[in-house]
Amino acid sequence: MTELRRDYLAERWVIIAKERGMRPSDFKVEKASRPPSGACPFCPGNEHMTPPAKFLYLEEDGRLTVKADCDGERLKGWLVRVIPNLYPALRPDVKPLEHVNGFRVCVGGAGVHEVIVETPRHEVHVHALDDRQLNLVFRVYAERFRSLAAVPYVKYVSLFRNHGRMAGASLSHPHSQIIATPIVPPKISEETSSFRRSWDGSSCILDEVLEYEAGSDRFVDENRDAVAFCPYASTAPFEVWVTPKRHVKNIAELTESERASFALLARRVLKALHDLLGDPPYNYVFHQSLSREEYHMHLRILPKLSTYAGFELNTGIIINTVLPEEAAKHLRKLIMKNT
Amino acid sequence: MTELRRDYLAERWVIIAKERGMRPSDFKVEKASRPPSGACPFCPGNEHMTPPAKFLYLEEDGRLTVKADCDGERLKGWLVRVIPNLYPALRPDVKPLEHVNGFRVCVGGAGVHEVIVETPRHEVHVHALDDRQLNLVFRVYAERFRSLAAVPYVKYVSLFRNHGRMAGASLSHPHSQIIATPIVPPKISEETSSFRRSWDGSSCILDEVLEYEAGSDRFVDENRDAVAFCPYASTAPFEVWVTPKRHVKNIAELTESERASFALLARRVLKALHDLLGDPPYNYVFHQSLSREEYHMHLRILPKLSTYAGFELNTGIIINTVLPEEAAKHLRKLIMKNT
Repeated sequence: MTELRRDYLAERWVIIAKERGMRPSDFKVEKASRPPSGACPFCPGNEHMTPPAKFLYLEEDGRLTVKADCDGERLKGWLVRVIPNLYPALRPDVKPLEHVNGFRVCVGGAGVHEVIVETPRHEVHVHALDDRQLNLVFRVYAERFRSLAAVPYVKYVSLFRNHGRMAGASLSHPHSQIIATPIVPPKISEETSSFRRSWDGSSCILDEVLEYEAGSDRFVDENRDAVAFCPYASTAPFEVWVTPKRHVKNIAELTESERASFALLARRVLKALHDLLGDPPYNYVFHQSLSREEYHMHLRILPKLSTYAGFELNTGIIINTVLPEEAAKHLRKLIMKNT
Repeated sequence: MTELRRDYLAERWVIIAKERGMRPSDFKVEKASRPPSGACPFCPGNEHMTPPAKFLYLEEDGRLTVKADCDGERLKGWLVRVIPNLYPALRPDVKPLEHVNGFRVCVGGAGVHEVIVETPRHEVHVHALDDRQLNLVFRVYAERFRSLAAVPYVKYVSLFRNHGRMAGASLSHPHSQIIATPIVPPKISEETSSFRRSWDGSSCILDEVLEYEAGSDRFVDENRDAVAFCPYASTAPFEVWVTPKRHVKNIAELTESERASFALLARRVLKALHDLLGDPPYNYVFHQSLSREEYHMHLRILPKLSTYAGFELNTGIIINTVLPEEAAKHLRKLIMKNT
């Protein structure tokens, strides 16, 4: 059974994904520090440990090619693998039907959950990828986003990366995830309303923010096509937003050259965070829209250095012990040193 | 500097609490597992390690008495201590003024942040407190809530307990926290709107939920004055709501006997979770209102068995791998065995 259930009182949704039939004892086990299981299912040679790839990106005769539905064949020499998640949060074989029984509201858990294995190299994370591989990863982001956004019942495509066990990564091999959902998530919906209110047909509130923050003490770095800054109300210590200068609603709308430039800036920020904080756990998440022209896409990089505890769960207000202006100062210094 | 800042795009607030002047290296240290520092500042004999108590509850000549502002005196034999948080998220010496500069909106970080040390005994948590001490703790909850709710600029009083390091508790000695805020938190505000829509002058949507869930497969336990159940859209594995049967807006409105009965049911649920999951980390949080009659107070117990990762941060949708109906079944079984 996979379904989305709405809170009795609020526009908050939960995916009930009882895939593994978790028992109470499974949670007890989770507390012990489990030894790493030896073989990494994302490393070359272990492809049989995952479902067959939906897409393989590989180099043949010096040219990049893409192969679809690669069940056991052409596994050698891949650069990026896109595979179905073994324990999907949402599933394509479920109907996205809504059921309303008084205060019990649910929607069938229809969707797609994919893993993007970013490189065959177990230890090379995004901050350390070479230009070619970095570009390829961001190209795959754009292609998978475009493709899943076209599925008729899909209302949002969440593209994100969890790095480190504290940030929810259960495997350490470099990978991102993509989850296509049958509802517009509440956060994105609220942001879209805000963009709509400020939209004048060509520029939005984030354009105004970009212009201001590019010259403020929260500025981190920029290049031709993108700006990086610590947001005024940073929800995490050392949070950074990387934002394309051109108003585009999602990653698929960036030109190849804008996307490359955006990726370079993201990598520079990730490298600075890595050096400053000693390979911190982090999440990065793309905020974007499938169809609303008013929405301005951006990437939020969220180091996982604190825990949402009782106060945050009770109120929704987040406590951050690092001043964004201080965080930006440290990052600017490090980027200057690195370049 | 302590202030609340609003997100550029949404009604989301962050408390910037730069109390400790955290430096990047502090976060590196956090990653190493620090050895416990030996002396617990909440244990009897170590009272000098914390700010002076605002209130001491103690037994004198067989009678319970309360002493205010106990700087160094009468420290022996206390049952409960209420002390200012050494690193407060909000502070009473700040003015709760709002500043709006275009998209930069902030409110001065005025407020009160207290710690309630629940017992002199380092190892005895709420699930294992005896009746007298349990009643005292819930009495202190009600008294501190009532007192802070009366401060003119206070708009909400968040009362919560973090248990275990994973759930954000930095000290293991049994304690709860209370934070009075100068704004109505977005979560509480959204819930209040929902209560208002369903309010008919005497009963609310949660009354309807209670009646239904008391007979559903999500029912956990009840007594004369309260009901415990796993909510339909549980945001955490084994989440339980403990709710007074009578419609009251906050804990201060419960009669002494209702409060005792509510506390007993909460303890029974906590004991069951402890036995079922092996002393899991958890947060419990009181959802209540200072002044809105439509609001129906309840306690949410949230075992911390999973991590909010990229998907949750991006969308606000939470993935829960345990069916609430399964969780309730396990808890019912255990409670039957325990009684």
